[in-house]
Amino acid sequence: MAQQARAIQTRRSILVAAAAVFDERGYSSATISEILARAGVTKGALYFHFSSKEDLALGVMDVQLDSNPRPQLTKLQELVDQGMLLAYRLRHEPLVRASVGLAMDQAVEGLDRGTPFRAWIDRLEHLLNAAKDQGELLPHVDPRETAEMLAGSFSGIQVMSQALCRREDLGHRISVLLHFVLPSISTPAVLTTLDMAEDRGERLSEALEAVPSQAGATD
Amino acid sequence: MAQQARAIQTRRSILVAAAAVFDERGYSSATISEILARAGVTKGALYFHFSSKEDLALGVMDVQLDSNPRPQLTKLQELVDQGMLLAYRLRHEPLVRASVGLAMDQAVEGLDRGTPFRAWIDRLEHLLNAAKDQGELLPHVDPRETAEMLAGSFSGIQVMSQALCRREDLGHRISVLLHFVLPSISTPAVLTTLDMAEDRGERLSEALEAVPSQAGATD
Repeated sequence: MAQQARAIQTRRSILVAAAAVFDERGYSSATISEILARAGVTKGALYFHFSSKEDLALGVMDVQLDSNPRPQLTKLQELVDQGMLLAYRLRHEPLVRASVGLAMDQAVEGLDRGTPFRAWIDRLEHLLNAAKDQGELLPHVDPRETAEMLAGSFSGIQVMSQALCRREDLGHRISVLLHFVLPSISTPAVLTTLDMAEDRGERLSEALEAVPSQAGATD
Repeated sequence: MAQQARAIQTRRSILVAAAAVFDERGYSSATISEILARAGVTKGALYFHFSSKEDLALGVMDVQLDSNPRPQLTKLQELVDQGMLLAYRLRHEPLVRASVGLAMDQAVEGLDRGTPFRAWIDRLEHLLNAAKDQGELLPHVDPRETAEMLAGSFSGIQVMSQALCRREDLGHRISVLLHFVLPSISTPAVLTTLDMAEDRGERLSEALEAVPSQAGATD
C-alpha cells in the first residue's frame, strides 16, 4: 500500500513536470529529457508510467476528468456539479489549467486533442441518459447533442474568462451558462431544485477535501 | 479610388502573410522580417498599415469581426445570423480561422487576446439591446450577460468541432447551441420566426457574394 502511494506520487510529479514543460516550450518542442530533468525521476520510473511524449500529454489532458463530486438527489444536479467543480479547479489547480490548455491549443500537432472532449461528452451523456431514465428531462432533449453543446460551451467560456480576467469570474460565467441552458433541458419540477449558484464549486471542493473520496487511491 | 483599392489589397496580403507566419512559428517567435518576406511588400508599405507585430496580430484577430449580414425583420435574427455566418466563414476562410486561432491561443504572451472577445461581446450586446427596445426579449434577460455567454460558448464549440472533425459539423453545432439558448432569451412570438437552420450561414454567405456590401470598400 505504501508502495502504491509512492507510485501515485511519482506519477503525479511526472505529470506536473510534463505540464510545466509543455506549457513553457509548447508540446511540439518539448522533449522527454526535459521532463525527466524537471520531474527528478529516473527514466525507468517515467517509462513505467508513460510510454511516450504523446502518452504524457494524454495523461496531462486526463487530469481535468479526475473529479468525482458526491452523488445527489437528481442526475441533473450531478451534471451541474461537474461543471461547477471543474470551474473551481481551473481557478485553483495549475495542473488542471495545463490539462485544459493542452486540449484547447490549436497549434498542437501530432496529438489527438479530441480525447478529453470525447471523454467529457461521454460522461455528460451518461448523466443525461440517467436523468432521462429518472424522468428529469423534457421530452425532446437529445442527451448526446446536449452533452456536446455543454462540453463545447464550457471550454470556450473558460478561455474567454481567462483572456478577459484570468478566470476570476469563471464560477459566475458557468452559473450563467447553466441558467440559460437548464430550462431547455430540465422539467420545471427538477429545475426549481437545482443549485447553480456561482459558489457551488467552492462548496463542492470543500466537501470533497473534508472527506477525501477513494477515487484517487484506486488509480 | 483605384489607389484605395490597391491599399486594401496590400493590407489584405500583409494580414494573410502575418496569419500564416503566426500559425507556423507561433506569435512569440514570429518576426516582422518573415512577414515582410512572405507578403512580398516593402517595409514602408507594411509600416503604413501596421505599427508593430502586436498591431499585426490585432489586425489578424479583427478579421473575424469583418462581416455584416443583411438587416432582418428582428434583431434576434440578426444575432443568430452573426453566429451562423461566422461558423460558415470559419469553415471556408483560412484567414478567419487564423484570426480565431490567435484569440484562442492560451500560449500567446504579450498580446491582449481579450480584444476580439470584447468586440464580439459589444456587438452582440448592441444587438440584444436593440432587440430589447423592440420588445423581442423575455423580461428577465440581461443583454450584457447574454452576449458574454454566447461569445464564450461559440468560441469553445468551434474549438471542439475543430478537434473532433476539422469543423465539418460546425454549422450544426452552432444551430444546436442557438436552439438551446434562444428559448431562454426570445419571446415565443419572435422565437417561432427565427431561422436557426444549420445551412443558414451558407445561404447568408451566398446572398452577400451575390450583392457585395459596401462595408469592405470603406475600410
